[in-house]
Amino acid sequence: MKLDAYLKAQQKRVDRALDRHLPEPKTHPAVIHEAMRYAVLNGGKRFRPILAIACAEALGGRVRDALPIACALELIHSYSLVHDDLPSMDNDAFRRGKPAVHKKYGEAFAVLTGDALLTHAFHILAQGANAKILPYILSELTHAVGSKGMIGGQAMDKQISLAKQFDLAEISYVNIHKTGQLIRMSCVAGAISAGAGKKWEREIALYGECLGFSYQIVDDIMDGDGFAKIMSRHEAREEARLLIEKAKRSVKPLGARAGILTQLADFVLNRKE
Amino acid sequence: MKLDAYLKAQQKRVDRALDRHLPEPKTHPAVIHEAMRYAVLNGGKRFRPILAIACAEALGGRVRDALPIACALELIHSYSLVHDDLPSMDNDAFRRGKPAVHKKYGEAFAVLTGDALLTHAFHILAQGANAKILPYILSELTHAVGSKGMIGGQAMDKQISLAKQFDLAEISYVNIHKTGQLIRMSCVAGAISAGAGKKWEREIALYGECLGFSYQIVDDIMDGDGFAKIMSRHEAREEARLLIEKAKRSVKPLGARAGILTQLADFVLNRKE
Repeated sequence: MKLDAYLKAQQKRVDRALDRHLPEPKTHPAVIHEAMRYAVLNGGKRFRPILAIACAEALGGRVRDALPIACALELIHSYSLVHDDLPSMDNDAFRRGKPAVHKKYGEAFAVLTGDALLTHAFHILAQGANAKILPYILSELTHAVGSKGMIGGQAMDKQISLAKQFDLAEISYVNIHKTGQLIRMSCVAGAISAGAGKKWEREIALYGECLGFSYQIVDDIMDGDGFAKIMSRHEAREEARLLIEKAKRSVKPLGARAGILTQLADFVLNRKE
Repeated sequence: MKLDAYLKAQQKRVDRALDRHLPEPKTHPAVIHEAMRYAVLNGGKRFRPILAIACAEALGGRVRDALPIACALELIHSYSLVHDDLPSMDNDAFRRGKPAVHKKYGEAFAVLTGDALLTHAFHILAQGANAKILPYILSELTHAVGSKGMIGGQAMDKQISLAKQFDLAEISYVNIHKTGQLIRMSCVAGAISAGAGKKWEREIALYGECLGFSYQIVDDIMDGDGFAKIMSRHEAREEARLLIEKAKRSVKPLGARAGILTQLADFVLNRKE
């Protein structure tokens, strides 16, 4: 299957599921529910949920088992962006060409909207994930996006920007944690939902880890930031390429089933936005 | 048992468990883990965890089953205070006589610390709650503290403070949701951990609902705020008293086992801080 068509079809599917899983905009108090939908239903690429679904399918799982988990992952991604855009954090006024949540609804409601999206992610998981896998997937997910994972990466990113300098170890920590952990976890979540077993969970975790790290390096190259500041663009690009090769090798034993995963890995390296 | 001694003993037990459940302060990146501990280990009364434990015990449950859940509830309470104190929210510089998290660590790290505490609450739940009750308790908890619960109450509270006016329906909504929902859920969580069954869950939910609502009314009377602004202190006090009577009636069938719950209800009405 052509990757473009696959991405479009999955994006539509995820968008429909997100719309279903989010409370109606008029739910009381309306401001918070409107803001939640504004933050999520914004034409995002849905890369993390698509990764979860693709990994689940590659390992023989069913989309309907992966879909609620995929939605939870996207809500966590959305909450992290809402809080990241806040004036005290990155102070970004725009997100995907539209006013950031704090610009549209004010800072207090942006804090609360992020909190609500994070909480709702776990609500979806509680209701949608198979009860047998819930303790394990919840434990892994909260670790991946907690203070030793995604939030740890955001904290280090802030420390770096306050210190106005960083070294390779620090910027690697940010890339692996701030961006990488949720991407890695999206792949692992797909594998867990498919009941793939420990061996394949580990392979898929490696695939996701390489994808997540190179995703941020490519971002850095595009923005002339982070990694691209402490090595040449050529070196950074080479680093990203090696990671993508490693990712592809880790799923090679899946044979024909690795098709989409291989294409997704190349997509991360070659994307232009 | 005298309530004072009970409260002190349980507070110690909860403090020890919180200390165990929180990551070490030097865990990388240290700033976030220090701030998490600063926000939680601050001499708090641990009223919500104690309620959960007391309800569990009154219904024949074991403390060791209720304790991880009780810690998760306290972490959620702590995160809500960290975010509530932010300049864009209530803008409180002090909490329990010490600088608020955003005053001590800066606003960005306060946002992240709140996020980390909320996430870690669910991590503790994933690892500590009985797998059989996890889907149910996670679903109930995320509803109680989400956009239709605690966060909804915080949003309405902010709307009221921006509009500089409110009516009885609005301030009741704030009290029931912002403060009441987590207190109610603490009781329900105790009941669920004890495997009390639907009938007792409902009675304990009523008990917790009455406690939570009157807790906030008593706060309002002490602060001359909210409820105490739209009715006389005497009327507000009478409202709180009726709620506490109702709470006590709902646990009366437990006989001698209701002892602590009855005393906790009186404690809510008569507390001076």
